[in-house]
Amino acid sequence: MTQINTRALPGMMELLPAEQIEFDRMRRIVEQEYQRFGFTQLDTPVLERAETLLAKVGGETAKQMYRFTKGDNDLALRFDLTVPLARYVAEHMNDLSFPFRRAHIAKVYRGERPQAGRFREFYQCDIDVIGREELSLSYDAEAPRVIYQIFKQLDFGKFTIRVNNRKILNGLMEHIGAQQIAPDILRVVDKIEKITRDELVADLLDLSLTDEQIEMLLKFVAISGPADQSLPALRDLDIDNPLFVGGVDELQQVADLMVQMGVEREYFAVDLAIARGLDYYTGTVYETVLDEHPGLGSICSGGRYDDLASYYTNVKLPGVGISIGLTRLFSQLQSLGLIQTSRKTVADVLVMPLSDQQISQASQLAKSLREAGINVDVLLAEMPIKKRFAYADRLGVAKVVVIGEQEAAQGLFTVQDMASGDKKQLDLDSLVQYSVSIIGR
Amino acid sequence: MTQINTRALPGMMELLPAEQIEFDRMRRIVEQEYQRFGFTQLDTPVLERAETLLAKVGGETAKQMYRFTKGDNDLALRFDLTVPLARYVAEHMNDLSFPFRRAHIAKVYRGERPQAGRFREFYQCDIDVIGREELSLSYDAEAPRVIYQIFKQLDFGKFTIRVNNRKILNGLMEHIGAQQIAPDILRVVDKIEKITRDELVADLLDLSLTDEQIEMLLKFVAISGPADQSLPALRDLDIDNPLFVGGVDELQQVADLMVQMGVEREYFAVDLAIARGLDYYTGTVYETVLDEHPGLGSICSGGRYDDLASYYTNVKLPGVGISIGLTRLFSQLQSLGLIQTSRKTVADVLVMPLSDQQISQASQLAKSLREAGINVDVLLAEMPIKKRFAYADRLGVAKVVVIGEQEAAQGLFTVQDMASGDKKQLDLDSLVQYSVSIIGR
Repeated sequence: MTQINTRALPGMMELLPAEQIEFDRMRRIVEQEYQRFGFTQLDTPVLERAETLLAKVGGETAKQMYRFTKGDNDLALRFDLTVPLARYVAEHMNDLSFPFRRAHIAKVYRGERPQAGRFREFYQCDIDVIGREELSLSYDAEAPRVIYQIFKQLDFGKFTIRVNNRKILNGLMEHIGAQQIAPDILRVVDKIEKITRDELVADLLDLSLTDEQIEMLLKFVAISGPADQSLPALRDLDIDNPLFVGGVDELQQVADLMVQMGVEREYFAVDLAIARGLDYYTGTVYETVLDEHPGLGSICSGGRYDDLASYYTNVKLPGVGISIGLTRLFSQLQSLGLIQTSRKTVADVLVMPLSDQQISQASQLAKSLREAGINVDVLLAEMPIKKRFAYADRLGVAKVVVIGEQEAAQGLFTVQDMASGDKKQLDLDSLVQYSVSIIGR
Repeated sequence: MTQINTRALPGMMELLPAEQIEFDRMRRIVEQEYQRFGFTQLDTPVLERAETLLAKVGGETAKQMYRFTKGDNDLALRFDLTVPLARYVAEHMNDLSFPFRRAHIAKVYRGERPQAGRFREFYQCDIDVIGREELSLSYDAEAPRVIYQIFKQLDFGKFTIRVNNRKILNGLMEHIGAQQIAPDILRVVDKIEKITRDELVADLLDLSLTDEQIEMLLKFVAISGPADQSLPALRDLDIDNPLFVGGVDELQQVADLMVQMGVEREYFAVDLAIARGLDYYTGTVYETVLDEHPGLGSICSGGRYDDLASYYTNVKLPGVGISIGLTRLFSQLQSLGLIQTSRKTVADVLVMPLSDQQISQASQLAKSLREAGINVDVLLAEMPIKKRFAYADRLGVAKVVVIGEQEAAQGLFTVQDMASGDKKQLDLDSLVQYSVSIIGR
């Protein structure tokens, strides 16, 4: 027999049942909260026309794309969920109501060099609100409100949603007359947490900035902290550039609205250092960090964009969206030992008919339990009782019910707790009630 | 602007929100019942090594495969969920407990010529039970038991799970000494419902069968109907071939067990005409048809196989599995007008703060409703009240709560039913209770 490699491809996450159950638990929390906030989940094909995807990106992303031909078709696997959303909204515009709210939790593909925490196939969990021609700034506060809810529930410790507004930085660049080299400046400023002040100055001098320009930049990057300190400090810079002032106003409003919408103040911060998606985002931007694990970087990012689908339609579609990279987050938490697997099977109860004579009764019991919301595995294999319990043990099921001749005759069931070994003898109704009380969902 | 084609690729299903919600409702029923029966949902990469997939298939399936290279890798999109399962079980064998039960609901890819009801990207909803070295025949009865539960709940009318056993046909071929041309005979027999008896005989004569062989085949294919008629009729053929007799015995046992497990007799039938997966399945086989829509063909198929992963491991892994082709089923039901869409949004309630002054109160209300399990969309766009209701109408939300200055001051909320126009004035707690009573999940 030729030896065929049975490992999943490099960069593709493949989980064992216990891990998968935990991954799905996290995924369901995200999915459910997206629903609670009225985001309808959509589904678009994984395969798109290569031209559709390439309309919007080039460079590294284009190189990473899984692109191929089949027949006459030039195809590619989607590398994010935003470009397919743009195509979807452009295509179905007249059948949608705006502001259009959609959630999408699905896999995307990037042929990156595999490395720890980087995946070639990974889940993104996106929500976006798209306006037709216009979209209220209030939605910029709603997106982090959803994220706040989700990470509270995921319960991986204190987190901070960092908020900024791209207009502030762009306005500052205009103000100091450095728009031309803004991307270079931002690249330097992005390193602020990793380099010394002197190195920062040296790097800025390398860009031929004047002392005056550098002084203003340093004043600017020194501003941080909660909104009620950083926003006044920004105004104190006395910059009268309209873009800058507009950005500060927007950031102020978004911060105020987030509080009104119920985001606790200590869970978000204005952070002028974040400048993600230089080309794509045009206003509010977000990043989210776990306070106790800053090394993970941003675990959830997004922002406001002026026009979702300019490549596909002339209708202006401003939007705001946010995305959780669940595969990466799961993998990172796992390597930190923060993923607790609690079960290796979805089954809550394992029913064991001791012979085919008891299958009918076992099925009756399983049916009653399932109708009450309990997940039941019936062990139909014929094997000695010892092997049965060994199976239950390996399976990691919490409760076992053995049905032999005696149990079948009496209509009484013995339920055994696999952890403690405790046994209870109950009739059908009591067994269902008992199971619901300890397991029911 | 270059005009970019924004339609989804041919053969890829893309749904509008109302349809997507209905699709997801169906999908969730399948997913939940798989869970109730203790099948843990797994996830494997969409991309596999081409050699992994090609180990098991050739011919048409291989041609339809989306295969391409990226860097040095010869890759392909999975065309089913069974081959990836085989790889998964071979790879992780020592970490799994057998009988191993897994569910997998995910997309697969086949580059077929697009035509009505055929898709290039489609959902399969699979369950399989895999034994290590052996697997009790009782699991052959459990798979249709799950399917019975699901289609009862999906509620698309009366259905019939047709059951057969490949050994019967194979044994018959041995008996009449026609093993060599068995595939050709089966191709003819497969057409039985579409051609006349004379055509059937003519086709069989073309295969150089003797009158005696043909007589036996005709006797055989004439047998149909419920298990308690067809199984005795099979025995009455007096065929002493061990494979044949073993197949009849197995079919008898599976039929008996299905009844004991709670499948109503009128929902399944022994059907000797079904012979799916000639190479793959080795024992029990299933097809499921909607009685009122026989034209749809089989909407759920599967069977028993001797060895899941012979290409990847020397350990013998017998299994039994069944698969629902949900994309195709949905599309077929849709073209029959049987898909009822009931809503265009997941939101149950739309809350409308009339200005930013009421956002705080609207958020409080939304929070309380969401905590009670209600999906709430808060309309944050500033627009005249008429436009707001036009949005609610287009969105198709059932209930609307307007919050103006007065409502905010009094702490009383007016909830309006969009269909009837009925209004109720309630305080926060009563509104939550009311919403749960009519919408709660």
